[in-house]
Amino acid sequence: MDTVQLKPIGIIHTPFKEQKGTPIQPKRGKGIEGTIEIFPEYVEGLADLDGFSHIYLIFHLDRSEGFKLKVIPYLDDVERGVFATRAPRRPNPIGLSIVKLNRIEGSILYIEDIDILDGTPLLDIKPYVHNFDEPQDYRIGWLEDKADRADNEDADDRFAK
Amino acid sequence: MDTVQLKPIGIIHTPFKEQKGTPIQPKRGKGIEGTIEIFPEYVEGLADLDGFSHIYLIFHLDRSEGFKLKVIPYLDDVERGVFATRAPRRPNPIGLSIVKLNRIEGSILYIEDIDILDGTPLLDIKPYVHNFDEPQDYRIGWLEDKADRADNEDADDRFAK
Repeated sequence: MDTVQLKPIGIIHTPFKEQKGTPIQPKRGKGIEGTIEIFPEYVEGLADLDGFSHIYLIFHLDRSEGFKLKVIPYLDDVERGVFATRAPRRPNPIGLSIVKLNRIEGSILYIEDIDILDGTPLLDIKPYVHNFDEPQDYRIGWLEDKADRADNEDADDRFAK
Repeated sequence: MDTVQLKPIGIIHTPFKEQKGTPIQPKRGKGIEGTIEIFPEYVEGLADLDGFSHIYLIFHLDRSEGFKLKVIPYLDDVERGVFATRAPRRPNPIGLSIVKLNRIEGSILYIEDIDILDGTPLLDIKPYVHNFDEPQDYRIGWLEDKADRADNEDADDRFAK
């Protein structure tokens, strides 16, 4: 199949300069503030976005090189299939976070609850809509007894080169 | 900034051959079943995924050509900024859906609650983890009095070429 070519629409600015110490999920990044700079040619597409309290960010995990199909994810000490984790070294290095949108001023989005590295290229924004996005019954596999710990743990350097 | 090159990891098979009539959100596709064929070189990465009842699919909106920064989205009759919608003609044609994962047999994922066109190239899978992904207080802007209608409406051809 054809490769897909994408072009960043902006840059995400956060306090996290390196992977080590970065929150491993947006909830752990609670209260951490950052900004997104949208490139001028895309600013018109931000209209009406300020009505939403939360947005999905889809971004390029640009510090991630290569991938492994089995990884030892944060919160665990045994190998898991990479698609059952959110580890950054994936076949396609795409990141997904839900963050809080505090306000928009021109081309700048002020966001909160961030687990993203500074300088990360942004690929897309979509509104978070609970009516569409919240399943009612769910099972969370290997994370069942571990997910709550994400609120208290940061990344180490296990996915560094 | 550099362009990002991605390579599909599989193909999504669904009953929807054209945009018109396709559900506009996974909830509207409730009960609709489909499969995902993961390419052999990535199958190892599916380990442990079967413990999760719901997964995020990130896919290439490959039938979408070009983009508009202002669109009239489904459920509405006035123009909105494209990033405040999930319309398919976006600067980067990336789709995001949460679907139900019924089972995995080898390289085939059996999924349910689908709003995706048949033959769509899959880019990534991530587990849905409610602890990470459900904001507590939310506002949904222009969709406030419209989102519930998504359960009863299908796509028309407004985003066709």
